[in-house]
Amino acid sequence: MTTHVDTPKNIAILGASGYTGAELVRLIATHPGMVVRAMTADRKAGMAYGAVFPHLRHLDLPELTKIEDVDFSEIDLVFCALPHATSQNVIRELPNTVKVVDLSADFRLRDPETYAKWYGGEHTAVELQKEAVYGLTEYYREQIKSARLVAGTGCNAMTGLMPILPLLQAGVIDSDDIIIDLATGVSGAGRSPKEGMLHSEVSEGYRAYNVAAHRHLAEFDQEMSLIAGKPVEVTFTPHLLPQNRGILATIYVKGEAQAIHDALRAKYDDEPFVYVLPFGESPATQHVRGSNYCHLGVIPDRKPGRVMVFSTLDNLTKGSSGQAIQNANLMLGLPETMGLELAPLFP
Amino acid sequence: MTTHVDTPKNIAILGASGYTGAELVRLIATHPGMVVRAMTADRKAGMAYGAVFPHLRHLDLPELTKIEDVDFSEIDLVFCALPHATSQNVIRELPNTVKVVDLSADFRLRDPETYAKWYGGEHTAVELQKEAVYGLTEYYREQIKSARLVAGTGCNAMTGLMPILPLLQAGVIDSDDIIIDLATGVSGAGRSPKEGMLHSEVSEGYRAYNVAAHRHLAEFDQEMSLIAGKPVEVTFTPHLLPQNRGILATIYVKGEAQAIHDALRAKYDDEPFVYVLPFGESPATQHVRGSNYCHLGVIPDRKPGRVMVFSTLDNLTKGSSGQAIQNANLMLGLPETMGLELAPLFP
Amino acid sequence: MTTHVDTPKNIAILGASGYTGAELVRLIATHPGMVVRAMTADRKAGMAYGAVFPHLRHLDLPELTKIEDVDFSEIDLVFCALPHATSQNVIRELPNTVKVVDLSADFRLRDPETYAKWYGGEHTAVELQKEAVYGLTEYYREQIKSARLVAGTGCNAMTGLMPILPLLQAGVIDSDDIIIDLATGVSGAGRSPKEGMLHSEVSEGYRAYNVAAHRHLAEFDQEMSLIAGKPVEVTFTPHLLPQNRGILATIYVKGEAQAIHDALRAKYDDEPFVYVLPFGESPATQHVRGSNYCHLGVIPDRKPGRVMVFSTLDNLTKGSSGQAIQNANLMLGLPETMGLELAPLFP
Amino acid sequence: MTTHVDTPKNIAILGASGYTGAELVRLIATHPGMVVRAMTADRKAGMAYGAVFPHLRHLDLPELTKIEDVDFSEIDLVFCALPHATSQNVIRELPNTVKVVDLSADFRLRDPETYAKWYGGEHTAVELQKEAVYGLTEYYREQIKSARLVAGTGCNAMTGLMPILPLLQAGVIDSDDIIIDLATGVSGAGRSPKEGMLHSEVSEGYRAYNVAAHRHLAEFDQEMSLIAGKPVEVTFTPHLLPQNRGILATIYVKGEAQAIHDALRAKYDDEPFVYVLPFGESPATQHVRGSNYCHLGVIPDRKPGRVMVFSTLDNLTKGSSGQAIQNANLMLGLPETMGLELAPLFP
Repeated sequence: MTTHVDTPKNIAILGASGYTGAELVRLIATHPGMVVRAMTADRKAGMAYGAVFPHLRHLDLPELTKIEDVDFSEIDLVFCALPHATSQNVIRELPNTVKVVDLSADFRLRDPETYAKWYGGEHTAVELQKEAVYGLTEYYREQIKSARLVAGTGCNAMTGLMPILPLLQAGVIDSDDIIIDLATGVSGAGRSPKEGMLHSEVSEGYRAYNVAAHRHLAEFDQEMSLIAGKPVEVTFTPHLLPQNRGILATIYVKGEAQAIHDALRAKYDDEPFVYVLPFGESPATQHVRGSNYCHLGVIPDRKPGRVMVFSTLDNLTKGSSGQAIQNANLMLGLPETMGLELAPLFP
Repeated sequence: MTTHVDTPKNIAILGASGYTGAELVRLIATHPGMVVRAMTADRKAGMAYGAVFPHLRHLDLPELTKIEDVDFSEIDLVFCALPHATSQNVIRELPNTVKVVDLSADFRLRDPETYAKWYGGEHTAVELQKEAVYGLTEYYREQIKSARLVAGTGCNAMTGLMPILPLLQAGVIDSDDIIIDLATGVSGAGRSPKEGMLHSEVSEGYRAYNVAAHRHLAEFDQEMSLIAGKPVEVTFTPHLLPQNRGILATIYVKGEAQAIHDALRAKYDDEPFVYVLPFGESPATQHVRGSNYCHLGVIPDRKPGRVMVFSTLDNLTKGSSGQAIQNANLMLGLPETMGLELAPLFP
Repeated sequence: MTTHVDTPKNIAILGASGYTGAELVRLIATHPGMVVRAMTADRKAGMAYGAVFPHLRHLDLPELTKIEDVDFSEIDLVFCALPHATSQNVIRELPNTVKVVDLSADFRLRDPETYAKWYGGEHTAVELQKEAVYGLTEYYREQIKSARLVAGTGCNAMTGLMPILPLLQAGVIDSDDIIIDLATGVSGAGRSPKEGMLHSEVSEGYRAYNVAAHRHLAEFDQEMSLIAGKPVEVTFTPHLLPQNRGILATIYVKGEAQAIHDALRAKYDDEPFVYVLPFGESPATQHVRGSNYCHLGVIPDRKPGRVMVFSTLDNLTKGSSGQAIQNANLMLGLPETMGLELAPLFP
Repeated sequence: MTTHVDTPKNIAILGASGYTGAELVRLIATHPGMVVRAMTADRKAGMAYGAVFPHLRHLDLPELTKIEDVDFSEIDLVFCALPHATSQNVIRELPNTVKVVDLSADFRLRDPETYAKWYGGEHTAVELQKEAVYGLTEYYREQIKSARLVAGTGCNAMTGLMPILPLLQAGVIDSDDIIIDLATGVSGAGRSPKEGMLHSEVSEGYRAYNVAAHRHLAEFDQEMSLIAGKPVEVTFTPHLLPQNRGILATIYVKGEAQAIHDALRAKYDDEPFVYVLPFGESPATQHVRGSNYCHLGVIPDRKPGRVMVFSTLDNLTKGSSGQAIQNANLMLGLPETMGLELAPLFP
C-alpha cells in the first residue's frame, strides 16, 4: 500500500465513470497526500468501481454513489469530471467549504458572452465563472494556490498555449500569423459510445475534425490576447489520431528560431513538468504517454523567419487529470509534484 | 483467373521484394492487360514470391531472379522498384526497346545539380534524367503517353502537388505563403528493418521527422515553380502516423475559399481518380486505403483570407504503385484506368 | 468503369448501412456480372451512400431507400444484411421470384427448436428455415446452385468448419476432443456504437468473450454432427483482437498430423479460394486481409498424437460478404469466382 | 523528486538499452529504495540515456558505459538485461559481493543438459546455474530472500505457470492434458530491428509462431514436473498480437471448475500482485498494462469436466522487469511491493 503523509486530504470525484475520472483514480492510487473518500456516477450508482474499470479492481475504493449521497462535510477537495453544462449546475450547489477542480469546459472562459457564443447557452453560475482561476499551472500558480475553484484547461488548448504564451510574452513572434496544426488521440472523446470513435472507424486512419470551429479556440483567444495585450486570433486545425493517448501540436510561427528557443527555456527551465528539447529536435507523443510531462521543441524552417514549434503531452494526464492533481496539490498546500512523477510508459 | 485482353503486355518488376513491388503485384493480379513475366530481388533470387509475401501465395508468378537473368527481349515494360541511386545504374543498362516506369527518386528531378544537392551525389545517367517524364499523370498525361521513361513521384510530393498546382495555375493563392503539414503511414519507409519502424516504436505515437529537410521538397520546388512561372518555396513538415497506409496533407494557404474550391473542381472534375469533396468537408486516409483515389477538400478558416486545403491518398497506391500502373497503361496504349478501379478497403 | 458482361444481374442490398453491406458494395463495384439497383437502410433512407460510407463516394449508386420502396420485380437477387430476427420477417415478405442470400443468423440452423434455444425466440419463418441452404460453399455447392434462399454462415463458424469438416469426414481425428481457440477482429461486431468496441477499449488489448456460450456453437454442432454422423460437441473460446479484419482459429485435435494435412489437401486442392499451406507452416490474418481466401495450416505438437490445425480468413469477405457473393454467383449461373479474385491487401 | 528511504540501495543495470532495461529504469524512477548508479550498453557507451530512450530524458541518470568501466564495489545489486548466452559470461565475472537478478534465459533451467538441448550450446557457468533461484516469486519467495543470483522467468512461462502450478499442486486437474494457447504483444521481441516486428508486418494481424517449439516449454516442463512430482508435458502455442504489451493465456484443462477456482483463490488471495477474478469472468491484457499485476479467471466449458483458465500480465512488468524488482526487493530486505504499486494505464 502507498505510504501516506500524516493526514492525507479527503477527495471526492464527481463523474468518476469516464476516462478522466479513471485517470484521476489511477494517479491518486499512488499519491501519498490524497485518499478517495467518495466517487459518483449517477447511472452506475451502487456499482463497484472495479466493475466499471477492471484495471483498477485491485484498489480499495468506495462504491459509486449518486452526488446527493455524498457527505461533503468530510471532503477537502472535489474533482468534478462531469460533462460540460452539467458541471456548473452541480458545482453551484456544493458547500463553499469545499475546494473544487473542475475538468469540464464550464469555467474556462471568464466572459459570460464568450461562453454563450461558444457553448450555445447561458451560463448558470456566472458568479462562480468570475471567481474561477484558469488551471494553466505554469501561468496561474499563485492564484491557484488561493483559489476555491480552478477550471481545468482544454487538453488541446493546453498543448497550444504552453509553447505560444512565452513567445507572445517575450514578443519574439508575429502575433498575427500563428497556425496550430494539432493531432490528438481518441481518449479525449470520452467513453460514451459514438460511431466515429469505434476501433473500426479510427484505426489505420487520420482525418481533421471541427476545422476552424473547435471550442478550444475560445481558450486560445482568451489567454493569448491577455498575455499579448491585444487581440490574438490563431488558425487551428485539430486531427484525430489512431491512438488512445497523446496530443502533438506543430505550430507555424514567424520569428527567429534561436530567440524562440531561448524564450521557451527562460520560461520553463525551472518548471518540474516541462522539458524544452535541445534546439533542432522535435518531440513524440509516445515519449510522454501516461505522464504529466510536456515536451517542447523548436526547429527553424528553411525559409528565413519561419519557425516550427512543437508541443506534446498526454491529453488524459498533463492535459486533464494530471494537471488537475497538480493544481489540487497547490490548493491543498501539498508539494506541487506530489504523486505526479510517474515516468512515461514506453513502449 | 482474371480474364485478360487478347494480348496482355509482358511486365518485369525489378526489386520486387519491397512493399511497392508487392503492391504492383497485387494490382497486376487483377489487371486484364498485364502479365508479370519476370521478377527480380538480388538477395532473394531463387525464392518463390509467396515465400517472401505470403499474402500473394495464391498467384501463379515467376520465381524471383537476379536482374542479369531476365530476358528483356520479351518484356514490354519494366517497373523498377529498386532503391534510390541503384535504380539509375540499372535503368541505364536496360535495352532501349523496353519502356520503364521507375518508382525511385532517381529521375524525378530534371536538374543534375539539384539532384546532387538533395541526394548527395552525382547522377550517373544524366541523359536519361533529361528524357524522363515526371509521373504526375494529371499534369503530364500527354508526355507520358509517348515517354520511354517515366519517373514516379514521391508519395508525399504527390499528396501536396495535387491540391496546390491547380491553385498556383489559377492564381488564386499567395505563392509566397504555403504551408504543408503532412502525416504519413509507415509503409512508405519500406520493409528494411529499422529500429524506428518497429511496432513498439511507432504504434500509439505521433511525431514529426525530417522537418524542413525532407527530400520531397525538391519536387515541390521544381513543379510549383514551373507551374507558377516563378520560384515557389513551401514550408513542409512531415509526420509519422501509427498506421500502415495513407497520407493526409493539411495545407495552409492565403486566398478566397470558394475560388480555391472552384479551381480544384475545374481541374479535377473530369479526372477518373481525383475527387473534390463538397465545399466545407475534409477527407480521411481510411477512405482511400488500398485504392488509386485521391480525395481533396477545402474549408475556410475563421480568419478571412486564410484557407485550409486537404489532400489524401494511399502512399502505396496512388502515391506509388497505383500511379505507376496508371502511367504504364498510358505508355502501353491501354485504357488509363484499367486494373485500378478497386474500391478502397474500409474498415 | 468496370466492363460488365452483357446482361449483368440486378442486385438489391437490404440493410446496406452496416459493414457487411459496405463490403458487398465494395466487391460488387468491380464485379462484371452484378449491378446494384437498390439499397435500403431504414433510418438513413434518402441519404446518398457516399455520405454513409465516404470510401465509396466515387461509385455511381442508387440512393438509400426504405425496403417498402424497392421494386423487387426488377431484382434478380437480394443480399439481406439486416440484423438477426429482423431478417426473417423481411425475407418472408419478399416475392418468391427473387433469390436471396441472407447474411444474418436467421436461416443458418435447420431445426426450429435449436434456433429458439440459441437465439431466444421462436422463428417466424419456419418454412423458409427448412428450405434454406447453409452457405458453406465448399460443402453445399450443388444445393446452392439451385437454391432460392441461402443462409450465410457465421464468420467464426466458417473459420472453424473449413479445417474440421474434412477431418471428421476422413475420420482422421478424435471427434470427442476438439478445441477451437479463435481470435477475431472487431469489424464483426458491426457499426453500431458500443462502449466495448471503442478504439480506447479495444486497441492495445486482447481478451476472450462469450466463452463457452457463443452462438456460433450451434453451427458447429449442426454441421460437424451431420458430417460425422454422430453428435459432435466442440470446445470454443473466441477472443477479440485489436484489429479490424481477420479471424484466426488455432484448433487442437488428436490424430496423426500427416494424415490430417493429407485430408485437407484432398478436400481443398481444387478449391479456388482455399489454400493449404505446406506441412509445418501456419497462416496469418494479415495475409488474407480484404480477400476471399482462406489459408489452412497443420503443425504437429511435440506430444505424439496431438496436432494444431490453423485456419484464417477475413471475417467481412470469405467470412460474410465475399462468401455471399460466391454463393450468389452460383445461384445466378455466373462463374463462381467472378468478382472475388482481389488479392489481399498487405501491408 | 521521489523521496527515498534513508539509505537507498545502489543499483547497476547491465544492458540498459533494451526494452527490459528501460522498464527497469521507469520503475526505479519512483522506487524509494533504489537509485541507479551505473548503466551499461556496450555499443552506446558514452551516450546519455535520454538520447536512447527519450521518454526518460527528464530523469537524472548516469551516462551509459561499458561493463568494464563499472565500479561494482559500490553496487548492491545488478540487474542483468543482456541477451541470452552473453549474460552467463558476464555474471560469471562479477564480484560475488554483488547480488544479481538476471533477466535473460541463462539461469532459468537447473539442468545443464536441458539447457544445452533448448539453447543449443554448453552452459559456461554451470556452478552458478546450480545456485540460481528461479524467480517465480510466489513460489520461491523464501529462497529468493537469501539468494545471490535470481533468474527471471520467461514472460510466457510466467503467464502459464501462475495459473497451472496451484492446480497441479492441489491435484485438481489432469496433468496429462494441459493446453496453453497464448497471445503476446510485440515488445517481448525486443528493440533489435527485425522485419517481422515492423509496424507494417505486425499491425492489423495475428499469427502463431514457434509452434510446439518455443523455448519457454523447458520452463514449463521443469516447474510443472517438479510441483506435480512426475513428468508433465504441456501443449503450447504462442501467437503474436498487434499490440506492444500484454500476454494472455487461455488454458484448456480437465477438472471441476469450482475446485479449480478454489485452488487459485487459496493460493493467491493473500498475494499482493495476483488477482483471481470472480468465478465465470475472464481477464483482459489492457487491464494490467504497465503494472505488476497478474489477473486470473476460470470459466467452465459447456462440456462437463473441461475448464478454461485465463491468465494475463504485462510481459515487460510482471513478466520481466517488475518481477525483477519484486525479487530484488526481497533480496535487499526491502518491502516486497516497494515501487511496484503503479496502477495499470488504461486506456
